[in-house]
Amino acid sequence: MQRHSSLDEAADLAGVAALLQIGAEIGVDRLLDSGATFDAAELARTADLPQAGAEDYLAALVAAGLVVGTDVPGRFRAAEDYPDRRYAAGYVSWAMSANGPFLANAREFLTDRDAAARVHRRNGRRVAVSSRWIGERAFYPPVVDRVASAGASHVADLGAGAGGLLIELLGRDPGRTGVALDSSGAACAAAREAAAAAGVADRLQVVERTVQSLADDPGPVEGADAVLACFVMHDIVADEPVAKDVLGACRDALAPGGFMAVADAVSYAPDSAERRFSALFTYLHASFMRVTLPTERQWLDTFRSAGFSETVCVPLGVPGGRLFVAAR
Amino acid sequence: MQRHSSLDEAADLAGVAALLQIGAEIGVDRLLDSGATFDAAELARTADLPQAGAEDYLAALVAAGLVVGTDVPGRFRAAEDYPDRRYAAGYVSWAMSANGPFLANAREFLTDRDAAARVHRRNGRRVAVSSRWIGERAFYPPVVDRVASAGASHVADLGAGAGGLLIELLGRDPGRTGVALDSSGAACAAAREAAAAAGVADRLQVVERTVQSLADDPGPVEGADAVLACFVMHDIVADEPVAKDVLGACRDALAPGGFMAVADAVSYAPDSAERRFSALFTYLHASFMRVTLPTERQWLDTFRSAGFSETVCVPLGVPGGRLFVAAR
Repeated sequence: MQRHSSLDEAADLAGVAALLQIGAEIGVDRLLDSGATFDAAELARTADLPQAGAEDYLAALVAAGLVVGTDVPGRFRAAEDYPDRRYAAGYVSWAMSANGPFLANAREFLTDRDAAARVHRRNGRRVAVSSRWIGERAFYPPVVDRVASAGASHVADLGAGAGGLLIELLGRDPGRTGVALDSSGAACAAAREAAAAAGVADRLQVVERTVQSLADDPGPVEGADAVLACFVMHDIVADEPVAKDVLGACRDALAPGGFMAVADAVSYAPDSAERRFSALFTYLHASFMRVTLPTERQWLDTFRSAGFSETVCVPLGVPGGRLFVAAR
Repeated sequence: MQRHSSLDEAADLAGVAALLQIGAEIGVDRLLDSGATFDAAELARTADLPQAGAEDYLAALVAAGLVVGTDVPGRFRAAEDYPDRRYAAGYVSWAMSANGPFLANAREFLTDRDAAARVHRRNGRRVAVSSRWIGERAFYPPVVDRVASAGASHVADLGAGAGGLLIELLGRDPGRTGVALDSSGAACAAAREAAAAAGVADRLQVVERTVQSLADDPGPVEGADAVLACFVMHDIVADEPVAKDVLGACRDALAPGGFMAVADAVSYAPDSAERRFSALFTYLHASFMRVTLPTERQWLDTFRSAGFSETVCVPLGVPGGRLFVAAR
């Protein structure tokens, strides 16, 4: 038995990803991700499932080494390497589960993309969970660092989802305030709930709006020291006039010394360490989601034409990902 | 950018798995797997898709480094490391795509397994393709070696699927004959077609029958020097009397000096290199497929009670997999 080569890690990763996907499907991902201790009854309550089903799932997690026992009999918690494994599983979950409707109906998409796109939609929760698993490691930290080192006191996040990034930022500085903007009512509700649970609801304004709408009414970003956008701007930048209007409005609304931090993807990154995932990401967006990703050069040009004085581009942990920091 | 750690390989693997899954969905997996050269028109014809769709997919494969150009402009073939990457992707494809209906409906399965199992079924082709990608590397070679080194001239394969293993064996020895048994009419049709394409149809008998039926009529395995069964016996062994009858019938039907070679899985392999994938495999079978995997000890006991004189057990490349070679 030849084991522990990179080929064999594939089986490990596949096993972990499917087990964690089941956890996300039954709604225990937050409990596992929290690192808190729990027992089978708590797992069953969180999932709202019969205890027998929760016990079998728990046994599988323990057998896989993803969950370990504690000093208290019957109580468990995520293993020490769980965050690393969850991050790795995030890529598999995003590629295979979040994009499952694209893969399963590839023939239809390759025959008539727009007709297929109207019928076969992704599950928003699967996209959000897998993006969180990747993002918490691969693009949240560098964005948080930028905001913290700039001492930005008022921060807006565009496409904020469940508000995780802002809640992290507000938790780090009791004087900081935030605006979470998202076009999904469900995401906004989740953000309000998460902000309340984290005790920062009084400093977080949640706005149900599209990013595009900022071109006409930049109110939500007015006076921000930092405007953040993680993997949401690529929906907009392909349309040059819209991109110019939205980014221009954000720029004009920034406080003096403010900046935009846009974490996003470039088209077909050629580097050997990036090319495989970047190829999937680029191809799925183009052929399944009607989104043509810009090159690094095109991203930089877009920021310049929107009036930003200087834009810095640094690679992110996610292959093909870049952090653009654009100064007012 | 920290890259090329085992965490970053996760993104590579996820990208590759999803791109190859798309290939399987549009029906170009055999063309890619063959290593033959092809152009966009051929890819489109094989997939029966508009050429534009095939071209975009081909561009993604090239960008990902899975397919490379040749000396002939416009002609491509799978990259040198494609077989390795396809093997690794096989685990992800099996875990996430073949078992997709289990994962997506986990809540229903954990509430009422049997009711859910009647409604949510796996796609046979997705199971077959991912099993082939894993099996060609992880369990075909040791089985082929056993048959070859024993000089077995008449070989039966139970649950033969599309007949890949037997066609490989017949191709290696022009004096060898085979019987492919499968309960699926589609699999039998595919086996007949593949045998004809490989020029071994005159030496391969295809029988549409369940493995269980051999207990009453062992005709298809009568006189075999080797009876093979790859990941099919676990459906049977949990029911002790049935297992004893089927294995006993196979044993009695074997030619003198003959053997059974059963590649299959043990329950929850505890070894650190096996535990993650084995946990998923065991759990999915128990909680989603009503199959309780035996331990290694239970497997060995089953062969003994069926009358086999001696059974050797060796680990397979697939985590939790074992090759049981049982001598008449």
